[in-house]
Amino acid sequence: MTTQELWKKYEEQRFKISAYDLLLSTTYYDADTIAPVKGRDYRNERMAYISGELFDIETDPEFIKLREELYRRDDLTFTQKQILKWELKDLESFRYIPKDVFVEYSELTMKANVVWKQAKNADDYKMFEPYLLKIIDMNKEMLKYRPGELKGYDVYLSDYEPGMTIEKYDRFFDLIREKLVPLIKKVSAASKIDTAFAYQFYPADVQRKMMYKILDYMKFDLESGLMGETEHPFTNSLSKHDNRITTHYYENSLLSSIFSVVHEAGHATYNYQVSDELAETYVFDNMSSGMHESQSRLMENYLARNSAFWDNLYPQMQELFPEQLKDISQQQFINAANAAECSLIRTDADELTYPLHILIRYEIEKGIFDGSIDVNDLENIWNNKYEEYLGIRPQKASEGILQDVHWSGGSFGYFPTYALGSGYAAQFVHAMRKDLDIEKCMHDNEFIKIKEWLKEHIHKYGGLYLPEEQIRIATGEDFDPNYYIEYLTEKYTKLYNL
Amino acid sequence: MTTQELWKKYEEQRFKISAYDLLLSTTYYDADTIAPVKGRDYRNERMAYISGELFDIETDPEFIKLREELYRRDDLTFTQKQILKWELKDLESFRYIPKDVFVEYSELTMKANVVWKQAKNADDYKMFEPYLLKIIDMNKEMLKYRPGELKGYDVYLSDYEPGMTIEKYDRFFDLIREKLVPLIKKVSAASKIDTAFAYQFYPADVQRKMMYKILDYMKFDLESGLMGETEHPFTNSLSKHDNRITTHYYENSLLSSIFSVVHEAGHATYNYQVSDELAETYVFDNMSSGMHESQSRLMENYLARNSAFWDNLYPQMQELFPEQLKDISQQQFINAANAAECSLIRTDADELTYPLHILIRYEIEKGIFDGSIDVNDLENIWNNKYEEYLGIRPQKASEGILQDVHWSGGSFGYFPTYALGSGYAAQFVHAMRKDLDIEKCMHDNEFIKIKEWLKEHIHKYGGLYLPEEQIRIATGEDFDPNYYIEYLTEKYTKLYNL
Repeated sequence: MTTQELWKKYEEQRFKISAYDLLLSTTYYDADTIAPVKGRDYRNERMAYISGELFDIETDPEFIKLREELYRRDDLTFTQKQILKWELKDLESFRYIPKDVFVEYSELTMKANVVWKQAKNADDYKMFEPYLLKIIDMNKEMLKYRPGELKGYDVYLSDYEPGMTIEKYDRFFDLIREKLVPLIKKVSAASKIDTAFAYQFYPADVQRKMMYKILDYMKFDLESGLMGETEHPFTNSLSKHDNRITTHYYENSLLSSIFSVVHEAGHATYNYQVSDELAETYVFDNMSSGMHESQSRLMENYLARNSAFWDNLYPQMQELFPEQLKDISQQQFINAANAAECSLIRTDADELTYPLHILIRYEIEKGIFDGSIDVNDLENIWNNKYEEYLGIRPQKASEGILQDVHWSGGSFGYFPTYALGSGYAAQFVHAMRKDLDIEKCMHDNEFIKIKEWLKEHIHKYGGLYLPEEQIRIATGEDFDPNYYIEYLTEKYTKLYNL
Repeated sequence: MTTQELWKKYEEQRFKISAYDLLLSTTYYDADTIAPVKGRDYRNERMAYISGELFDIETDPEFIKLREELYRRDDLTFTQKQILKWELKDLESFRYIPKDVFVEYSELTMKANVVWKQAKNADDYKMFEPYLLKIIDMNKEMLKYRPGELKGYDVYLSDYEPGMTIEKYDRFFDLIREKLVPLIKKVSAASKIDTAFAYQFYPADVQRKMMYKILDYMKFDLESGLMGETEHPFTNSLSKHDNRITTHYYENSLLSSIFSVVHEAGHATYNYQVSDELAETYVFDNMSSGMHESQSRLMENYLARNSAFWDNLYPQMQELFPEQLKDISQQQFINAANAAECSLIRTDADELTYPLHILIRYEIEKGIFDGSIDVNDLENIWNNKYEEYLGIRPQKASEGILQDVHWSGGSFGYFPTYALGSGYAAQFVHAMRKDLDIEKCMHDNEFIKIKEWLKEHIHKYGGLYLPEEQIRIATGEDFDPNYYIEYLTEKYTKLYNL
C-alpha cells in the first residue's frame, strides 16, 4: 500500500476514535454540569463500558501495526511524522496494560472519587486512606507495563510533561524554594492590602452578567464555545469549535469567579486557535499539561491581573455592582486581586504563594515513589510541610490532604505542571513584549492582538512539538525559570513596597 | 444453552445497546440545548457514525438469531416473552433496510432538517419542497423492506401506534369531524373570553421560578430529572432516573411555558414511574406515541387546566407577578387557559381546536400514501384544508405547511397519535374518577395520589402491552373515543354558556 493509502486508513480509524471521544466527552461534561444525581450509577456503568470499547479500538493490534508501519515510511511529511510520533508515545502509556487491569483501575478510581467526596465532606482522611493506598499500590505496580528508559516517578512526570524528569523538576523547585520562600516572608511581614470590599454580597446572576462582559472583552467566540457551571471549574475542548469552560459563583466573593473564568478561557483559547490543518488530528489536544497551564496562567495572572485589562471592564463592573464598588478605585481593585497571603487551599492561593502549594505536592509524590516517605503517615506529612513552607497548619482534612481531586483519580505527576506552566508563561510574556505593547493593546480594547500573537507563536501548532521545543520556537531561548522569579520578585516588591 | 444462559447473553447485548443509546441521547440533548452552533458539522458527522455502529449491533445477524431462538423457548416468563415480542416487532421496521439505504436516509433527513429551518425562516416552501418530495419518495420506496401483512400508510401508522390502522383512525377522525366541527362553530360564535392579561410582559427569569414551583407541586423529582431550555420543548428519558424536559420562555406570554412544562412533565413521569423490574429492559421506553401523549395531555389538559390544580399555585404566581395579575382572579386565569379560538399553529392551539389540526395532517398523509393527493400541490392542499376546517387560511408558509418539524425528519404516521393520546387520556381520567376525587387531591396538595394511580394502572407496565390492552387494563373497557367527545362537549358548553 502506498503511504497515502495507508494514511487514509489511519485517518479513518482516527475518525472512529474521535466519534467515541466526542460522545464520551459530551457525556462527561453533561455529568459534571447538569445530569441528575440519581442517574449516576446507570450512567457511570455505561460510560465505563464505552471507554472500554474505545480502549479496544486504540489498542487494536492491527491499528498499532498500521501506525508503526506508517511511522517507518520515509515519505511522510514532517507534520505527519510528528503526529504519529506523539500518538505512538502516548500509546506506550497504556498499550501494554492488560484490559482487566485497565478496567480494575478505572473502577477503582471511579469509586475512589466518590469516597473522596464523602471523606472530604466528613473531614475524615481515614475514610479515604485505604483507597489512596490502593491507588498508590496500583500506580507503582502498573509501572511494570511501561517499557522504556524512564523509571518510577519519572514515567508519570513524563506522561504529563514530555521531556521533564525528577532531575529537571528538582532544579526548578530548588529555585522556587530558594527565591520565593524569602520573598513570601517579606511580603507576610509587610502591611496588608485591603481586600474586604471583595467579600461583600455579589449576587450570582449579576456576577454571571459580568463574566459575559469579560468573555466579550476577550473576544471569546460563544458560537464556538460556551460557559457552564460546576462545583470545580474546568475546560474541555470537544472540538475546535466546541470549547467549553465552566465556573462556580461564590456570592460572598467577587474575585473567585472572575479569575477562574479568565483562566479557563485561556485553556479554551489554546485549542480554539489550533490551525485548521491540525484541528482534526491527534495534536489538536495532546499539548502537555504544563503548556496548557501556561496559556491559562498567562491570561489569568499576566493579563487579567494587570490593571490595563480593566481599563474597559472596571467601569462596567462598577455599574453592575454600584453599591459594592462605588468607593473602590480600579487601582484598589487590582491591588486586591494581587494581594498575597499564606493560605491552606491551593485553588484559592494567590500568584505568589501558589508555587509553594505545588512544591509541597511534588515533594510528597516524589517521596511516595522513591520510598522515602511513609505512605501510612501522609496526612501528617502534608500538614508538616504546610507548616514548614507556608507557616500554617491545616486543622481539617478538607483544608489539608483531602482538598484536591487529583490523587483520587490516580493522577500523580500532574501537580508539578501547574507551577511549570506559570514559569513558561513568564517567558512567553517576556517574548511577547518584544513584539507588542501589551498594556496598550488591553487599554485600546484590542485583546485580539494578544490572542493573535499567541496563535502565531504557540497555539496554531497544537501539540506538534515537545514543550521545550515549543518554548524555543516561541521565545528563541531554552526554558529559563528565572523569568518567572524575576517577574514575581519585581511585581511583589513594588506592590508591597519591599 | 439453557434459556437462562441465553437470556443472560441477551441482557449483555442489551446493556451494550443501552450504553450507545445513553451516550447518543445525551449528545442529542446537549446539541439541542447548549452545544455551540459552529461545532454542528463536526458533531453531526460523529453522531451519524455512532448511530451506524448502533445499527450494526442491533441488526447483527447473530444477535437477531439469539433473540429469535430465545423467543421460541417455552420456559420464558410472561414478561420476558412480552419484552422480546416488542423488540422483535420494532426490529422489523429496520432490519431489512440495507445499511447504505439507512445511511442515505439518515443523511437526507439530517440535511432536510437544516433546509426546513432555513425555509421556515425565509417563509419559502419551494426551498424545502424538493427535500420533502425526496423524503416521501424514500418513505414509499422503503416500504419494500417491510415484510408483513400491513401495506402502505398502515405500516407507518402501526410503527407509532401498534394496532392502529387507517380503518380505525378513519372511524376516530370521522367522530372528531362530526362532533367537534359543529361545537367549534358554536364556540366561535359565542362571546370571547378575555385573555389579554396573559400577554403582558412576563420576564423569563420570573417565569423560570414559577416553573420550579409547578414542578415542586407535581412532585417532579429533580434528582431524577432536570429542566432545560430549547426552541421546541421536548422530553427525553435517558434512564429511569434521568428524565429531561425542556421548555421555552416567551416573555410576552404567561401561558405557553406553563402548559408546555406540565405537558413534558407528564411524559417524564411516565418513564419515571416504570417499575424497577422493567427499567433496564426494552419496554422502559417503547410505549406507543399515543400512549405517551395520553400521559402528557392528561397532565396538561385534564389536570393543569382544571381550577383545582391552581388552588395552591395561583396565589404563588400572583406573588411572582404582582403587577400583571393583581386584578385577575383564579377563575379568570383558568378561563383564559381554556379559551378556544381557531388558529393556524398546531402547537399554540387550544384543547378544543387541536384535534382539527391533526385531522388535517392525517388526511394529507393518508392522501400522500394512497396517491389521492398530488404531492406537487401540498402547500395549496394544506391551506385549503385549514380554510375548510378552521375557517382561516395561512398567509405564510411558516404559519402553514412549514410549521412542523416532523416531515423533515421523515415522520409520517406520527401526527395522528397526538389526537389519539387526548382521546385515551379522557378515558383514563374517567376511570381514575371512580377511585379518586381528583379535584380534592389537587386542592389538598396531594398530586402524588394522582401520580400513584397512574403508576399503578399504567406507568409501571412501561410498554409491556399493546395500547388497546393497556387501556383495557387501566379502564376495564375497550378504547372509546366518546369519552373524549363528551368531555370536550361538556367542558366547552359550560365555559361558553352554549
